[in-house]
Amino acid sequence: MRYYIGIDLGGTNIAAGIVDSNGKIMIKDSKPTLKERPTEEIIEDMVKLVENLIKRCGIAKYDISGIGIGCPGAVDNRKGIITYCVNVPMKNVKIAEYITSRTGIPVNLENDANAAALGEYNVKGRGANSYIFITLGTGIGGGAIIAGKIYRGFNGVGIEAGHMTLVHNGDRCTCGKRGCWECYGSVTALINQTIEKMNANPSSLMNIKAKKIGKVDGRVAFEAAKEDDKSAKEVVQQYLEYVTDGITSIINIFEPELLVIGGGISKEGDYLLEPIIEYVHKYEYNKYCPKTKIEIASLMNDAGIIGAAMSCVK
Amino acid sequence: MRYYIGIDLGGTNIAAGIVDSNGKIMIKDSKPTLKERPTEEIIEDMVKLVENLIKRCGIAKYDISGIGIGCPGAVDNRKGIITYCVNVPMKNVKIAEYITSRTGIPVNLENDANAAALGEYNVKGRGANSYIFITLGTGIGGGAIIAGKIYRGFNGVGIEAGHMTLVHNGDRCTCGKRGCWECYGSVTALINQTIEKMNANPSSLMNIKAKKIGKVDGRVAFEAAKEDDKSAKEVVQQYLEYVTDGITSIINIFEPELLVIGGGISKEGDYLLEPIIEYVHKYEYNKYCPKTKIEIASLMNDAGIIGAAMSCVK
Repeated sequence: MRYYIGIDLGGTNIAAGIVDSNGKIMIKDSKPTLKERPTEEIIEDMVKLVENLIKRCGIAKYDISGIGIGCPGAVDNRKGIITYCVNVPMKNVKIAEYITSRTGIPVNLENDANAAALGEYNVKGRGANSYIFITLGTGIGGGAIIAGKIYRGFNGVGIEAGHMTLVHNGDRCTCGKRGCWECYGSVTALINQTIEKMNANPSSLMNIKAKKIGKVDGRVAFEAAKEDDKSAKEVVQQYLEYVTDGITSIINIFEPELLVIGGGISKEGDYLLEPIIEYVHKYEYNKYCPKTKIEIASLMNDAGIIGAAMSCVK
Repeated sequence: MRYYIGIDLGGTNIAAGIVDSNGKIMIKDSKPTLKERPTEEIIEDMVKLVENLIKRCGIAKYDISGIGIGCPGAVDNRKGIITYCVNVPMKNVKIAEYITSRTGIPVNLENDANAAALGEYNVKGRGANSYIFITLGTGIGGGAIIAGKIYRGFNGVGIEAGHMTLVHNGDRCTCGKRGCWECYGSVTALINQTIEKMNANPSSLMNIKAKKIGKVDGRVAFEAAKEDDKSAKEVVQQYLEYVTDGITSIINIFEPELLVIGGGISKEGDYLLEPIIEYVHKYEYNKYCPKTKIEIASLMNDAGIIGAAMSCVK
C-alpha cells in the first residue's frame, strides 16, 4: 500500500491528512491559517502538520509517496508555485520546493477546487471520461476531470464556473464583472435572498428560526420551507431556479458524463437534487442522447484533503 | 504527402474537398442538400461528390487516407453513427459504414462545429494546449480542442456554448430554455435587434441601407455605425455587450490558451475584436496570470471541410 499526504490550505484552516492509495483517510489534523501572518510561518505550520501526522500514524517517512496541496487561487502545477492566492495573501510562492526541501517528500500543487473535484471523482467518478464538480459554498467553485486528468486551463486558474454570467447586467460580483452565477447561486447569495425576504415578511417562520440560532445561515430558508412557510418556499424556489439554470448551462457546455454538486448547500440532499434533475432534463440542449448523471457529493469537507493526496498518484 | 477528404454536411449545401496533410484544400465542390428527400439520396450524393473530386484531382483512390464528415448535431464518433441531426432530418444513421462500403475509404464522423474548430486549430492553434472556437452565425456554435484532441462530451453533443444562459429568465430560445446566449449574440439576434431599432427610428441610416439591399442582414447596423449613425451605434454597442459578456464567461470557464471567433460576424475583424479584448481584459476572473489570446478566424467557410478532413489524421 502506498500513502500520500493531502493538505487543504483554506482562508480559515489548514487541514491535512494521510490518505492511502484507495483514497481513505488514515489520520487527519488541522491548524488555524492565521492568514495575516508572514507566508513563511504559514508554510512552516504546514511542514509541522506533515511531521506530526507521520509521527502519530506510525508510518515511516519513506512510505509517503507524495504531498499534495490544494490552494485557493491560481497555481503553476509544473513549477510548484502559488501564482496568487485568493483567500491567503500569497503571490509567487515556491511552496513545492520549500516543503520538499524540509520533508524530503515530492510535492504536487493544485487549485483547491480542482483537488476537491479529484477527491470526489475518486469516490464517485472513476471511469467517467468527463466529470464536473460544482461547489455551492461561500462562492461557487468548480473543477473538471477530463479523460482522467484535472483540467487546469493553460494558466492554472482552472474552471471558474461561478464567474460565468447568469444575469446580464446583474449584481456586481467581487470579481468586478456583473451578474456572475456566484452572485445568485452561492450560499452567500442565498443568505442575502433570505434576509431580504425576512425583512419584507417579519412574521415568516424564517425570522423565528434565525432568532433561535442567532444568525441567518444557508439552512434557515430550507428548514422553514420544509415546514411549509410560504415566504421561505418562495426564497428556496427562486434560489433553486438560479442554481439549476447555472447547472444547465454547465451541462450544455461540457456534456459531462457525471456532474457532482458539493459545498454547504449539498447537505440538503434530495431536496436540492430532485428539482435540479427535473429542470435540467426539461431544459438541457441535449434531448436525445445519453444524459449527464447528476449526484450530490459524498466526501464533504474531506474532499480537499483526499483530492490533494490523490493528485500525487501517478 | 497524404490526402484526406472533408465533407461539411449543412442544412443548405453539402460541401466537400480534398485536403493535403498540411490542411490545404486541393480541390472542392458542393451540391445542394435538399434536406427533405430520403436520407439514402443525400448520402449517395456525398459518395458522388467524393468520387468526382478524386477523379477531377487526378489522385489515385488509395492515396486518400480517410474521409471526414462534419455533421450538425450529435454523432457517435466511435461507431460512425449520426445520432441526430439538427438541420437535416437524420436519426441513427450508420453513415460511416455506408460510405466506407461504397468508397473503400475509412470514415471519421464529427460534430460540424467541432470539425470547424479543428480546421481553425490547424491553422491558428497548433500547440495550444486548450483552445476554444466560437462561431457567431445563425446560432452560436462552439468547439473545444483540449490537449490536441476534439472535446466531444461523453455523448457526442460537444460544447454548446450558445446554450449557456446569459439573461436569466430572458427570451425563449429554440432549444426550449430561456435566455440562451444564442438569443442575444447570434447574427439572427443582431438582425432582430437591428429591425427593432429601425422601427423605432425610421430616419436612421440603417433604414436607408436596408432598403438599398432589399433586406436586413447582420451588416446593416455595423455599416451604418461606421458612418456614425447614432441608432446604429447603439445597436452595435448593445450587441457587442452581449457577445463579449458571453465570451468572458467562456474564458472564465475554460481559461483557454487561445479563443478564436468565427462565423458571419467575424468578417467585421478588428471592429469586433478590439472591444471584445478590451472588455475581457477588464472583466475576466483571471487578473494576474497569462491571459487567453483572442483572435478572429481565418478560414471562414472552408473551416468545416478542412477540419473534417484533418479529423482523419491519426
